[in-house]
Amino acid sequence: MNGQRLDKVTFDDFKTARKRLHEILQHPTPLLQNELLNMELGASLYIKAESLLPVGSFKLRGAFNKIASLVETEKEPITVVTASAGNHAMGVSYASKVKGVTAVVAVPETTPQIKINTCRALGAEVHPVGKTFDDAYDYARKLAEEKNYMYVHNVADTDVVAGQGTVALELLEQLPDVDQIIVPLGGGGLVSGIAMAAKAINPSIRIIAVQAEGSSAYYQTYKSGKIVTLPSTNTLAEGLSMKKPEPYLLDFINAWVDDIVEVKENSIREAIKLFVLTGKLVVEASGAVALAAVMENQVTLTDKTVLIATGSNIDGSVLKDCVF
Amino acid sequence: MNGQRLDKVTFDDFKTARKRLHEILQHPTPLLQNELLNMELGASLYIKAESLLPVGSFKLRGAFNKIASLVETEKEPITVVTASAGNHAMGVSYASKVKGVTAVVAVPETTPQIKINTCRALGAEVHPVGKTFDDAYDYARKLAEEKNYMYVHNVADTDVVAGQGTVALELLEQLPDVDQIIVPLGGGGLVSGIAMAAKAINPSIRIIAVQAEGSSAYYQTYKSGKIVTLPSTNTLAEGLSMKKPEPYLLDFINAWVDDIVEVKENSIREAIKLFVLTGKLVVEASGAVALAAVMENQVTLTDKTVLIATGSNIDGSVLKDCVF
Repeated sequence: MNGQRLDKVTFDDFKTARKRLHEILQHPTPLLQNELLNMELGASLYIKAESLLPVGSFKLRGAFNKIASLVETEKEPITVVTASAGNHAMGVSYASKVKGVTAVVAVPETTPQIKINTCRALGAEVHPVGKTFDDAYDYARKLAEEKNYMYVHNVADTDVVAGQGTVALELLEQLPDVDQIIVPLGGGGLVSGIAMAAKAINPSIRIIAVQAEGSSAYYQTYKSGKIVTLPSTNTLAEGLSMKKPEPYLLDFINAWVDDIVEVKENSIREAIKLFVLTGKLVVEASGAVALAAVMENQVTLTDKTVLIATGSNIDGSVLKDCVF
Repeated sequence: MNGQRLDKVTFDDFKTARKRLHEILQHPTPLLQNELLNMELGASLYIKAESLLPVGSFKLRGAFNKIASLVETEKEPITVVTASAGNHAMGVSYASKVKGVTAVVAVPETTPQIKINTCRALGAEVHPVGKTFDDAYDYARKLAEEKNYMYVHNVADTDVVAGQGTVALELLEQLPDVDQIIVPLGGGGLVSGIAMAAKAINPSIRIIAVQAEGSSAYYQTYKSGKIVTLPSTNTLAEGLSMKKPEPYLLDFINAWVDDIVEVKENSIREAIKLFVLTGKLVVEASGAVALAAVMENQVTLTDKTVLIATGSNIDGSVLKDCVF
């Protein structure tokens, strides 16, 4: 597709991404130690709060790095296009606004109006198309071909993975002796980026990926050794929905991730509740699975374990259901 | 009282406090820009999230600085005592744990069990005494005299004010061209510290203090020019309750604060709701008054206006009432 890059990610890619991101991220996202949460868990955890980025998720990193790289290499003004019903769309919209690029976002018609309005308010042209993500994806790809738009893939792109990996570069500066990182796993861009960047600096850092029970294609593939395609997904953590592993990332994940676990849907609800009432952070379901894995005692904790709280874009009604 | 210091606060006091706090605060608290919140408000605000400190409020700064200074100057092991039903008690308990000091906290018998349990879990000896804060305060002062305990006052202490002022030192590094800071005003320690430290670096920074309508002794004193003592206070922002201005701080506040405004109780509820649903931060009522002042259009916004979100220790039931 126009603009898509599917090379191996090098350490230079991460460093370049970090430099580009400095335009919107003068300071790293916070690395928090919450004494009350730790007392409740009987643990000593650090939380990397990607949920507090300007549009509420780490997706901004990959989207911004990709769009900035396209602006650097293309001589003519560009239009970018993507398909997404969630955080990636907001990341693309915000990054495009900052870089002065026209953004077109295809979303399924079932997308909540508030997300459509947010992307529009950020200046993106939003096209509601079809009933499912796949419909919107096909439409967006066709648009890219026909109109020569640049496609910003949500996970399968070297520059997107490099952008997500900047989380690890920041973290290694904030906590040089971090020894374990627990990362939500949906499409795989974040955990691939974090694992490669972190292990390039310190190969002994353990990387644990966490899937939701209702959408665990990577987990099942990892455990069975055969590529598993799910007939459908059904999870509160809709941001992690993925029917099959992304081919571009599967080798990276097999090579660099130390373990994959899956958590129960009910634990995700409990983790959201604990985040809000004790951790004092609003975290969406996808962003709460790392804490859910700790609550389920699925991970052996170390001296310096960091959880990635990936995003905060949760509907008020879901928040209410989980917390109260 | 034993250990209390009531000198003028110098810039060296702030710098010393910053050095001491480095023991528990390797990184500054986050300065956040939330694009979604700014779009909702039609503004461009920065939020200094003191609510994300280890025990959920800025009070840890003053308490830690005070206790660390006592440990430095006293030759024998010390016991510290304070009266507080809230964030100051948790700050004293946590700081004492870190510094290996025995802490005694007097609280009114009406204090929620969860706060008592938290202080106890942090190692403090908690004495429930009487029905009001004044009862607990009298008891704690008497204990300090009789047993030669060191008193850690919640606002009237040079080292406490110096600790709170470190917020401004961090902020001026994070955003050197900040031109306005909006600060919740209860006892006055935070706004005094911030105003003095910020204006020592850049005298043109405007400092706006915000009181809750149900506890506005400073506001009424400021507007009338006469010291106002309230018969009682009644506000959701119980952390800002104060029947009369603190004599040690009143001159500082008159000299250094540019304006004091008061916000309606209902605006505080709305601000908590906006913080949670759009800003994705859990903020207690006291911590939400700066945002409430912006929502009431009581402050003329500037290019670089910063709100201080002071704390996050809100009961689940209050949170539910305000947000849903």
